[in-house]
Amino acid sequence: MVKMVVIPLFFIAALLCSPSSRAADFCVGDLKGPTSPAGYSCKDPAKVTVDDFVYSGLAAVGNTSNLIKASVAPAFAAQFPGLNGLGISVARLDLAPGGVIPFHTHPAGNEVLIVLQGVICAGFVDTANKVYLKTLNKGDVMIFPTGLLHFQVNGGGSLATAIVSFSSSQPGLQLLDYVLFANDLPSLLVEKTTFLDDAQVKKLKGALGGTN
Amino acid sequence: MVKMVVIPLFFIAALLCSPSSRAADFCVGDLKGPTSPAGYSCKDPAKVTVDDFVYSGLAAVGNTSNLIKASVAPAFAAQFPGLNGLGISVARLDLAPGGVIPFHTHPAGNEVLIVLQGVICAGFVDTANKVYLKTLNKGDVMIFPTGLLHFQVNGGGSLATAIVSFSSSQPGLQLLDYVLFANDLPSLLVEKTTFLDDAQVKKLKGALGGTN
Amino acid sequence: MVKMVVIPLFFIAALLCSPSSRAADFCVGDLKGPTSPAGYSCKDPAKVTVDDFVYSGLAAVGNTSNLIKASVAPAFAAQFPGLNGLGISVARLDLAPGGVIPFHTHPAGNEVLIVLQGVICAGFVDTANKVYLKTLNKGDVMIFPTGLLHFQVNGGGSLATAIVSFSSSQPGLQLLDYVLFANDLPSLLVEKTTFLDDAQVKKLKGALGGTN
Amino acid sequence: MVKMVVIPLFFIAALLCSPSSRAADFCVGDLKGPTSPAGYSCKDPAKVTVDDFVYSGLAAVGNTSNLIKASVAPAFAAQFPGLNGLGISVARLDLAPGGVIPFHTHPAGNEVLIVLQGVICAGFVDTANKVYLKTLNKGDVMIFPTGLLHFQVNGGGSLATAIVSFSSSQPGLQLLDYVLFANDLPSLLVEKTTFLDDAQVKKLKGALGGTN
Amino acid sequence: MVKMVVIPLFFIAALLCSPSSRAADFCVGDLKGPTSPAGYSCKDPAKVTVDDFVYSGLAAVGNTSNLIKASVAPAFAAQFPGLNGLGISVARLDLAPGGVIPFHTHPAGNEVLIVLQGVICAGFVDTANKVYLKTLNKGDVMIFPTGLLHFQVNGGGSLATAIVSFSSSQPGLQLLDYVLFANDLPSLLVEKTTFLDDAQVKKLKGALGGTN
Amino acid sequence: MVKMVVIPLFFIAALLCSPSSRAADFCVGDLKGPTSPAGYSCKDPAKVTVDDFVYSGLAAVGNTSNLIKASVAPAFAAQFPGLNGLGISVARLDLAPGGVIPFHTHPAGNEVLIVLQGVICAGFVDTANKVYLKTLNKGDVMIFPTGLLHFQVNGGGSLATAIVSFSSSQPGLQLLDYVLFANDLPSLLVEKTTFLDDAQVKKLKGALGGTN
Repeated sequence: MVKMVVIPLFFIAALLCSPSSRAADFCVGDLKGPTSPAGYSCKDPAKVTVDDFVYSGLAAVGNTSNLIKASVAPAFAAQFPGLNGLGISVARLDLAPGGVIPFHTHPAGNEVLIVLQGVICAGFVDTANKVYLKTLNKGDVMIFPTGLLHFQVNGGGSLATAIVSFSSSQPGLQLLDYVLFANDLPSLLVEKTTFLDDAQVKKLKGALGGTN
Repeated sequence: MVKMVVIPLFFIAALLCSPSSRAADFCVGDLKGPTSPAGYSCKDPAKVTVDDFVYSGLAAVGNTSNLIKASVAPAFAAQFPGLNGLGISVARLDLAPGGVIPFHTHPAGNEVLIVLQGVICAGFVDTANKVYLKTLNKGDVMIFPTGLLHFQVNGGGSLATAIVSFSSSQPGLQLLDYVLFANDLPSLLVEKTTFLDDAQVKKLKGALGGTN
Repeated sequence: MVKMVVIPLFFIAALLCSPSSRAADFCVGDLKGPTSPAGYSCKDPAKVTVDDFVYSGLAAVGNTSNLIKASVAPAFAAQFPGLNGLGISVARLDLAPGGVIPFHTHPAGNEVLIVLQGVICAGFVDTANKVYLKTLNKGDVMIFPTGLLHFQVNGGGSLATAIVSFSSSQPGLQLLDYVLFANDLPSLLVEKTTFLDDAQVKKLKGALGGTN
Repeated sequence: MVKMVVIPLFFIAALLCSPSSRAADFCVGDLKGPTSPAGYSCKDPAKVTVDDFVYSGLAAVGNTSNLIKASVAPAFAAQFPGLNGLGISVARLDLAPGGVIPFHTHPAGNEVLIVLQGVICAGFVDTANKVYLKTLNKGDVMIFPTGLLHFQVNGGGSLATAIVSFSSSQPGLQLLDYVLFANDLPSLLVEKTTFLDDAQVKKLKGALGGTN
Repeated sequence: MVKMVVIPLFFIAALLCSPSSRAADFCVGDLKGPTSPAGYSCKDPAKVTVDDFVYSGLAAVGNTSNLIKASVAPAFAAQFPGLNGLGISVARLDLAPGGVIPFHTHPAGNEVLIVLQGVICAGFVDTANKVYLKTLNKGDVMIFPTGLLHFQVNGGGSLATAIVSFSSSQPGLQLLDYVLFANDLPSLLVEKTTFLDDAQVKKLKGALGGTN
Repeated sequence: MVKMVVIPLFFIAALLCSPSSRAADFCVGDLKGPTSPAGYSCKDPAKVTVDDFVYSGLAAVGNTSNLIKASVAPAFAAQFPGLNGLGISVARLDLAPGGVIPFHTHPAGNEVLIVLQGVICAGFVDTANKVYLKTLNKGDVMIFPTGLLHFQVNGGGSLATAIVSFSSSQPGLQLLDYVLFANDLPSLLVEKTTFLDDAQVKKLKGALGGTN
């Protein structure tokens, strides 16, 4: 019996074992290769192992000993190349008491947040300028549509942790305060395009390392 | 000053406040309306509230008092209509000691799993028939590419819980045993197309409620 | 000769004249029908005329007699339903001397701006917080990638006009000042998530009609 | 044993049997419902049967008793609604001796042709104006990229038949001669935009039923 | 006259003849170059000829002298690089009397099958576990939605041949028996995740060359 | 205060400053690198400057001293690599009195035209062979759906200029007359596949430089 069945094994194997067939299942990112609008180049499938699909960088609580008392640990394609081209990525948020993930957007990727512990007050604003605000407890899930400004704040007295998923392997992250105050965008332009006062702009530019 | 600034408010508001502009930010599913290849119809934006973007159905441990000693709680567009059209969804897995999520595929959607507690032994097989197998601990993340057969087994002595994300708001779930043994697909066809023995097929058909 | 050739006319016409064949060429939006994640429902092709593909709403200079001394006239799918589903839209910007389109994003859609008259100083910031700033003259074209905060300012002494195109029929528009100061988002939350001072937040909330 | 295994059946079935889960597998077109840029509305999954996925309209040789001595039988979403939203469709071509499918394009959809019998001379021209011309025999496969003008001519002395597939469920078909000569586009405009002579335009307008 | 018209030839040719313009029409796969999530690199357009768009590998009847009495000849991007990036591919199936294409899935790509000769009994199961089963005769067309387990069996007494098309240039193929029995996935894991008996698993592992 | 706030700067900067995070915002085309079905390779983000996003090639009136008395200046990804992968591009049309952009298609990309000066008579034909014809004045906008044959003619007595946008960074351009008369496609094939007279074909082949 074995001998007979071995025949189709070799027959069909010709189809199954071509490297290109395997490449289509996934495209583990080769961070050193050329990139395209679709993402990183694919690592040679023959060298891909299960470890390309496993990531342990989200296991530990992040360091929240900073001003925002918060930590973001991304597992995007740049950190976890197995996600390259798959249209999905994840990250871990830790917010110490009083911690905050300031107003920000993800230019490319809807976000889904799941609270693992603690209480998180989260909100976003849509393009009709309507506010969506909610206090989330352990196990609650909340959606933040792509490109909309949103934030998360620790709403309790203990560490709050969340896992966030994105509908992109490279969703990006643009922090509002960094855009306005932590680069060389001239203060006058910031003021003209935000209506903020000169003193306010210069104060935050000073604090966040911005120049001009 | 206030009076002057109020002018652009009304000016720009004409652009911002059109319902159609809001519809483009998201498309909360109207499960009663017509569906299209892109998903459910959109709920009237004027009636959308923050609660359309929040879901609490994953908060509790699932009931694992069943043969597979496991539970799957999906938050797909059908359960959580806020996800409609966003290209992302999530689910919660609970595996009691000895629990197993049997071999299955998601026809449309790459999967990313994060272990919240316990130990999970997970694996998938690619189209070149190569096996990717890993024992995952708390905080570990693992990828399962779309359409490939995979499984998760409790690899420890206590409850294991995981959150899984998908790159689709309706990834689907096809359990291998259900396909083969829990419907009216004739036993002879199952045997001919799987090479399983007649006795094996009939035993599992009996157990899983299949006929013919 | 005529008679002979008429035969294939009727023959092939059966294929060509089906309404569904026409629907696939385009999908003029029916703003009253159900919407889906892919956009508006399609207007009955039998009722579509050339006027569904022509729009005159961008012909006139916009009213810039307002605080920002600027005007935005969109031709998105909501205003120009012929664009529905086509992945493209346009708008007209007019900036009087001193005029400004304040910091904003388009959640879904890359933007290409062409200066028709005058001088425009434009800029955007990427997710690595790098600033891209340029003074544009008549005929210059500039790109603003999707989801990134950007602005346009009149950089000369006369009216500046530009046409902008987007890679989406519903790109959306989120004005930073409106998100922060023109709704009911509590001042305390704004301050906590932006690091702006309380006085600054309240001043702009007052000016832009925000509450709380 | 049976009794024990029945438990997971009911447990998991809650997930599997929701109609919305089924809708995501496919979206059989409801030709009477609203359409969207993504295609037809979906037929109620509860009413879908295997017959929605089977089509017999390509089985017979087409009628080639016409001037072009050829026949095209499409199985696009309009004829075969099971294809709706699946990004694929097929058609059957029959060319009697001397038969020709005149110059045409498919606005949305790459084409792959397989010769079932006879000899077909086929060609397309790319946007660099390079000609790709080939005589195809039984079993040969040829690609025609989307939107490029192409044709097929019977290259032998017997009936030639081919199956063509498209990367769209609604690829469309635009026959060059019909665009130019079989509608009410004024002859003067045709001449000005094609450089064809007035007599030539009027001769073919007459033959194909065009007016003006 | 000739001289006058030659002027626009050179004028417009500047636009038409740029290699990049040609690259956008198609992207013939360079199997030796880097791959991306979108497929293979593009062959230099200057070296592309009509032969890159023609494939003769499906012309001959496949060898069915094997246990499954069947043959699959793919024309995917790996075999037919002209298909790279076009979202479509084809294959030829031959089933001798008694032949079977065992249960399998295509992880990425809807399938459309056309019977060229003989009788084929085909079926698939959806995620609601409903069976779709049909006996197909010459000329019949059947759809198999992406990612769903399906099979084809010769339903007559003579050779059956079919052409299948896919909505992907690299649809992949995962044979159920190979996943379970033809690799080094431990028998204990197979049994635990399929509920198959140990003897059954070991029998098929032996037959198909699986270890462990 | 400054010192305290500097802490999160460094903390969050680790996430923001990775080159891969920047690559995802955009993918400026490297015209010398490998291409993929998704477009050109990405230029090293570290070397990208604002000038990669600015293009001045559309500022001047084109040379209309040619037979068609018209000029097309494209700003596609090949001319303006900043557009690579962004799904949008633009071009400038100039038509002297009597000027014409002859019948043509864009194989990949919907088009939106805005008249900047003069009068343009434009038209397209859909796959049901219906004609859409309009005289456009300054400021008017018109849509031309992807893949459909269309044209633009100067409808007034002075220079007409338009900006066109496309829903693709490489929409392509196929001029009907060039396909038929300006290459080596044999006259006999042109005649057979267009029904044009031999004399007409040879006259235009002569004029446009076609051979055979």
